[in-house]
Amino acid sequence: MLNKKLAACLLAAALPFAAFAANDAALSKEQLEVASKLRDQALEKSDAYSLVESLTVEVGPRFPGTEGDVRAVAWATEKMQALGFDRVYTEQIDVHRWRRGHVHAEVVAPYPQPLVATSLGYSAATPKGGITAEIVEFADVQALEAADPETVKGKIAFINKRMVRTRTGEGYGPVVGARSRGMRIATEKGAAALVIRSVGTDSDRFAHTGMMAFTGVDNPVPALALSAPDANLVEAMLKRGKPVEIKISADNEMLGDGPSFNVIGELRGREKPDEVVIIGAHLDSWDEGTGALDDGAGVAIVMETARLLAQLPERPRRTVRVILFGAEEIGLVGAKQYVEAHKDELDKIVAISESDFGAGKVWRFDTGFPEGKLGLADQMMQVLAPLGIERGNNKSSGGPDSSVFYAQGVPAFRLYQDGSDYFDYHHTPNDTLDKIDPENMKQNVAAWIAATYLLAEMEETLGQLPTAK
Amino acid sequence: MLNKKLAACLLAAALPFAAFAANDAALSKEQLEVASKLRDQALEKSDAYSLVESLTVEVGPRFPGTEGDVRAVAWATEKMQALGFDRVYTEQIDVHRWRRGHVHAEVVAPYPQPLVATSLGYSAATPKGGITAEIVEFADVQALEAADPETVKGKIAFINKRMVRTRTGEGYGPVVGARSRGMRIATEKGAAALVIRSVGTDSDRFAHTGMMAFTGVDNPVPALALSAPDANLVEAMLKRGKPVEIKISADNEMLGDGPSFNVIGELRGREKPDEVVIIGAHLDSWDEGTGALDDGAGVAIVMETARLLAQLPERPRRTVRVILFGAEEIGLVGAKQYVEAHKDELDKIVAISESDFGAGKVWRFDTGFPEGKLGLADQMMQVLAPLGIERGNNKSSGGPDSSVFYAQGVPAFRLYQDGSDYFDYHHTPNDTLDKIDPENMKQNVAAWIAATYLLAEMEETLGQLPTAK
Repeated sequence: MLNKKLAACLLAAALPFAAFAANDAALSKEQLEVASKLRDQALEKSDAYSLVESLTVEVGPRFPGTEGDVRAVAWATEKMQALGFDRVYTEQIDVHRWRRGHVHAEVVAPYPQPLVATSLGYSAATPKGGITAEIVEFADVQALEAADPETVKGKIAFINKRMVRTRTGEGYGPVVGARSRGMRIATEKGAAALVIRSVGTDSDRFAHTGMMAFTGVDNPVPALALSAPDANLVEAMLKRGKPVEIKISADNEMLGDGPSFNVIGELRGREKPDEVVIIGAHLDSWDEGTGALDDGAGVAIVMETARLLAQLPERPRRTVRVILFGAEEIGLVGAKQYVEAHKDELDKIVAISESDFGAGKVWRFDTGFPEGKLGLADQMMQVLAPLGIERGNNKSSGGPDSSVFYAQGVPAFRLYQDGSDYFDYHHTPNDTLDKIDPENMKQNVAAWIAATYLLAEMEETLGQLPTAK
Repeated sequence: MLNKKLAACLLAAALPFAAFAANDAALSKEQLEVASKLRDQALEKSDAYSLVESLTVEVGPRFPGTEGDVRAVAWATEKMQALGFDRVYTEQIDVHRWRRGHVHAEVVAPYPQPLVATSLGYSAATPKGGITAEIVEFADVQALEAADPETVKGKIAFINKRMVRTRTGEGYGPVVGARSRGMRIATEKGAAALVIRSVGTDSDRFAHTGMMAFTGVDNPVPALALSAPDANLVEAMLKRGKPVEIKISADNEMLGDGPSFNVIGELRGREKPDEVVIIGAHLDSWDEGTGALDDGAGVAIVMETARLLAQLPERPRRTVRVILFGAEEIGLVGAKQYVEAHKDELDKIVAISESDFGAGKVWRFDTGFPEGKLGLADQMMQVLAPLGIERGNNKSSGGPDSSVFYAQGVPAFRLYQDGSDYFDYHHTPNDTLDKIDPENMKQNVAAWIAATYLLAEMEETLGQLPTAK
């Protein structure tokens, strides 16, 4: 049933929507008009920027299982309560904890000079006194994988692959294996340590940290990333033909398991409270920046979206659930444990998405809808297109955390942000508030509120994906 | 006398130079044509980039009095010998030595989080255990100077002034006092320490180091710079109205005096070897970057200029002396001691300049010539203008090291580089080779070889400036 009261309240003027045949019309003309109005209001007045400012200034780094993480959970809970959610609660998750120690790296020979490096996530410590060894260079992780162990044994394996800058971030896939798999391979081949060129697109003297697979690796070797200029430096030395010897030290520490939390806020559905649209982001961040782009911006965008929806005279038909996932950075831990804990309720999730790609403008609308429901996406595009958003594909899992739900058959969508500079800052100390343009945040919220409203308000649901159990 | 042999050798075609009255014609038509030819050859074939690549890769940081400095002196000496100079020699200078220790900074309250900071040059160490104190903010160094000591006593004075980006770098003057004078004032007022917003134009998480006046200050307090994003963070916390307490520690160390060197290479003048055109740069660098822009680029530009001049069939009429000054960063030490050691020969210096403003294109030609000799500058502009260089003013002292000579009456000139992004990298770890565009280096050498050739070849000298002793 059309919510006429709400439509009348918001509607200022009739907007020119394309006519759809009745059997395609998942969304009514009036629903689209309300969504357009919400979009325009958000574009003008939303203030997600203040939320990410608050999070980065008052909390800052919030690595899973740290005091910063505890403060972030408290911040999110209090903030959601103040913003007008109907229900705010946390769900505990279990995380591996780790402490980054001081790291030091330098070229010992033939041209002694210091290097800027950082430990990859959960890297082992070096022995006291560090590791001094010759570098062996590999073009990519596959080259290390194919290497004769004799060429690597006792040496420091150096994977030196550059990442390509793109708007979509698709340059990430071909390089991230160096970080995620390199340490295991280096360990198995008897290397003394792994060093990689940072997975990033900048040419600044920041090393990019990030997660690697470490469970089940016996006696893992230390694993470091060099900043791009430092990788260039080592590369230039190697090109001169003499052996290059470096020294690294890192006093990292594994701390055992501990708790973290998913923080959840809900606007209870007006008619179908047990049917849910999930909009998410992750609350945790890497430890060296203040997690502004990754993922303070996303946290702020979905919180502000819900705050504005909460100001409507009536709740949308379905429940809108904001989930601020914990421990995304260390392996989608919050999402995985959420899906496990709620596996019997997944068919009640109408759709899921998350904002986790920085603070650039949304430029594309991707979906992971059942094939028969793409008419809905086309209708949604009528409201999104005026924001400069184009229709993308139907292959999206929604984002990292959403993909865990999507794999279980939950329809997903993605408001794809322009990530051209996202990997300049990703997982570095330089991920700070000043990288966010408040105007871009307004455009994001405008897109989010339109999409969220329509999915929460539409007559029928999408059903589940054929990949469902 | 015109060097007809040389002109004939280089001259491919007559070039269209404006006619000058005989009494203005410091430079002949043929001299200008040779200079144009040299310019065009340099634009096409010069390779200063390889020199700065070599210096940054094979030496890297070269803070005065360190092992890196010793290696830089050896590098410069060997390189100049290989490049075809007639004479290469060093002159010892005396420098204060200092070791940067590990620095740590964090907000303790009300929002605990780490800060990115660096020690200013020659900063005192903190007591063991660091200093924890409340921050008092000042808009600029003048505000600190005017402050009642009671408001500062025992607290950490924080000078929070932003630098304005300009092509000329003139935004530097209004802010650098915070760095150069702030510590002395903070000490005199009984502050526990000085912290400043970095003197820089970037918004990256690099703190900018740099020199401060420290001699004659009794019990100097530690002095740190915060990166711009960290200064923003502290500012945002202060705006919330609660006292902001930070903890800093730094285990720097004064090491006593030691030697460094000016490295000098000469092309001996064909006719007037005792008359000298000096083209300089500084060999030393700050310790955290590899000194690519500051001042490896300048070193490379003037060395390459001389290398190409050395390939002419005949030497220019006068001696061209390349001086790679030592210890510029810590107070123009090499230049001052050179001028003192050679004070009886200053009237033999026809003109001086230096390249010390990064690796941007030259866009302006400034002079510090005697007023009666500006016709020469106009003539030189005929060769420089095609490089996109405009005529500037006659108030230039040539640059930091040159200014010491200029103050003694030596005519100076400046090939002003575009410094729009110079202070993004200045005195940070991020001053690395990747910030240099090889094409810009060619344009620089083209300008330098034209100017240097003309000044070394012209018939008459400029005389001394009226400010001379």
